Amino acid sequence: MRNIVPPYLVFLGDEERMLLAKTGVGVVHWAPERCLGQFRLSEEAFDLGLPDLTPEEAAARGVKSLVIGVANIGGAISPSWRAVFERALGAGLDIVSGMHERLCDDEALVRCAKESGSRLIDLRDPPENLPIGTGKKRAGRRVLTVGTDCAVGKKYTALSVWRELVARGEDADFCATGQTGVVISGKGFAIDSVVSDFIAGAAEMLAPENDPSHWDVIEGQGSLFHPAYAGVSLGLLHGAQPEAIILCHEAGRERLGFFDDFKTPDLRTAIDRHLEAAQLTSPRVRCAGVSLNTQSMDEEAARAYCKALSAELSLPATDPVRFGAAALVDTLLEFGV
Amino acid sequence: MRNIVPPYLVFLGDEERMLLAKTGVGVVHWAPERCLGQFRLSEEAFDLGLPDLTPEEAAARGVKSLVIGVANIGGAISPSWRAVFERALGAGLDIVSGMHERLCDDEALVRCAKESGSRLIDLRDPPENLPIGTGKKRAGRRVLTVGTDCAVGKKYTALSVWRELVARGEDADFCATGQTGVVISGKGFAIDSVVSDFIAGAAEMLAPENDPSHWDVIEGQGSLFHPAYAGVSLGLLHGAQPEAIILCHEAGRERLGFFDDFKTPDLRTAIDRHLEAAQLTSPRVRCAGVSLNTQSMDEEAARAYCKALSAELSLPATDPVRFGAAALVDTLLEFGV
Repeated sequence: MRNIVPPYLVFLGDEERMLLAKTGVGVVHWAPERCLGQFRLSEEAFDLGLPDLTPEEAAARGVKSLVIGVANIGGAISPSWRAVFERALGAGLDIVSGMHERLCDDEALVRCAKESGSRLIDLRDPPENLPIGTGKKRAGRRVLTVGTDCAVGKKYTALSVWRELVARGEDADFCATGQTGVVISGKGFAIDSVVSDFIAGAAEMLAPENDPSHWDVIEGQGSLFHPAYAGVSLGLLHGAQPEAIILCHEAGRERLGFFDDFKTPDLRTAIDRHLEAAQLTSPRVRCAGVSLNTQSMDEEAARAYCKALSAELSLPATDPVRFGAAALVDTLLEFGV
Repeated sequence: MRNIVPPYLVFLGDEERMLLAKTGVGVVHWAPERCLGQFRLSEEAFDLGLPDLTPEEAAARGVKSLVIGVANIGGAISPSWRAVFERALGAGLDIVSGMHERLCDDEALVRCAKESGSRLIDLRDPPENLPIGTGKKRAGRRVLTVGTDCAVGKKYTALSVWRELVARGEDADFCATGQTGVVISGKGFAIDSVVSDFIAGAAEMLAPENDPSHWDVIEGQGSLFHPAYAGVSLGLLHGAQPEAIILCHEAGRERLGFFDDFKTPDLRTAIDRHLEAAQLTSPRVRCAGVSLNTQSMDEEAARAYCKALSAELSLPATDPVRFGAAALVDTLLEFGV
C-alpha cells in the first residue's frame, strides 16, 4: 500500500475559507507532528498556524511531501499552483493530491518528477490489483463508524476513538478510507474511487488480519440510507468485518445533505439495519454507541440531547468534539471482556 | 451510451467447452437476428450452428462487429487471436471484447483500428463522466431481477420476462448490466466495472426516465447476501428504482458458489431484505415472484417445488427455462392495474 512520507509542507494556495482548507485543518489537528510548515500563495490565504516555508526551505528542514491542503470547487489544479509544484519536485518533495484533476496527467509535472526522482501521488487513484472480498473470518478487533448521512462526523469520530484507545494504552490504528484521512494517517486510499467489484476486497485490505488484541478503527463512508452512496457503505461494512459499529448523526439534520427528498433515518432503525447487514460477515457485531454532532445546539441542550438519546437507545451517546469519546471507548473495551 | 453495431461475427477461438463459450451461446439464443456467422480457429471449437465465415466474408455480407464469444480463465487475449482481430479490423469490423485484458492496451490493434476507422470496444471500460445517483423519482415502469447468489439466473430471468412482455404487446426493453447482456442487447455496460461512487448513478443512466407505460427489465448483479459483491447489488437496486423485483434462486443451492462459508439466505428473508432496501428510492416496490433454476431436478420434482414455494410465499414461482415466465409477467401486469 502506498505511503505518504512525512513531514509535510501543507499547501494552501490562496484559499481564504477554512471550510475549503479542510484537509489542511484536519492534518494539523490530528497529526501536528507530521506538519513542518505551510505554503500560501497570498497573505490572505487561510493560516494553519504553521511556519510559512518555501519548498526549498521546507526541503532543507527535512520535509518530504508537499500535501495539497485545500479542496476547490471542481477539483482543478490552477496554473499558479503548478509553478509551486515544479519547484517542490525540483527540491525533492513528493506531491500529494486529492484533487479530481490528476497530477499524473500533467506532462510537465510528470517530467519534473522523473528528473528529481520524486513521486506524484494522486489519492483518487486506488492501488492496482485489488483483491475481491473473501468474507473469511480474520483475527484482530475492528470498529467501523457508520452514518445517517454523509458528512456527519464519521472521520472525526473514528479519529477520536482511535486517540482515546491509544491514550488508554491499547494497540490501535486509524484506518483511513477517504482522502483527508489518508493524509492524516499517511496510508490508505479513497475507497469510493475503487471499482465496485472490489469495494469489500479493498476494505479487507485496508484493515487486514492483525493480533487478536489490536484495534483497527475504520473511517466509514457515505450511508446505507443514501440513494447515491449506499453501495460503497455496504461494501465497506461487509469488508470491514467489524465487531462493533458506532452510528454517527448530526443533531437536527432531518433531510440528507444535497438530497432533501430523503429523510435521515430514525436512529434505532439505522442501528438495526446496519447490524443486520454487518452480520453477514461478522455475526456477533454490536453497536458501541452513537456519536452526535451537536454543533447546532448550545452546550446545555447538547448534553440533554445526548442523555435523552442514550436512555432511549440504551447505548452511550456523546458528541466527541464537546464531550470526548470516552463513553464509546468504555463500551468497546467492555465488549472485549 | 456506447452501442454495439449488429450484425455480429461471433468469435470462438479454439474453445471447445460450451460453458466457456457462454457469451456466444447467449447471444445466439436471445438475439439470433444479430448473428450472421461464427469464426472458429479449429474445427473442434464449439459450434454455435452459425455459418463459418472469415472476417472478410463476414464484412462482405454486411457484418459490422466481431464479438468475442468466449471467456477464458484469466481473461487474456492469445496471440493466435490477434492475427484474426487485425484481419477483422482491416475488413472494417469493430472488435467487441469482455476480456480482462484490454484491446485498447494493444498498440498493434490500436494502430490497425486507427487505419481502418474501426472501433475497439472493451466492455469492461465503463463510459466516462458517469453521474452520481440522484434518487429522484422518474417515470416509466421498471423491474429488477435480484438473487440469492451470483449465477442463479438473473440474466436469463430478465430476458425471459422481457420477451414475454414484448409477446404480450407491451413496450419493453431489456437493460443489460453485464457483458453478455450487453452483447445480446447491443447496449449498456458492465456495472461492476464502474467506480463505486457512481454505481447508483450508472443504474439510473442504464434505465432512464421513460413513458409511464414503458417497461425496463433490468438484469441484476451479485447478491445483497454476498460478502464480495453486495455493494454492487445495493447500488444497482437503489439506482434501478424498481416498482417490482423478481427473486432468482437455484434450487438446492445451500451455500454461495466459491464462498462456501456462506449460506444462501432463506427466500422469505431475501425478499424482505430486498424490499426493505429498495424502498429507499421506490417506496411502493413489490415482489412479483420467484424465478427458480431447477436444473438439478427432474421435471416432476421441479413442478412440485415451484408449487410448494408459491404456496409458502404467496407469490408466483416458476422456472423460466422449463415453464416460461408467464406467471411472473401476469403479476407484473396486475401491479399496473
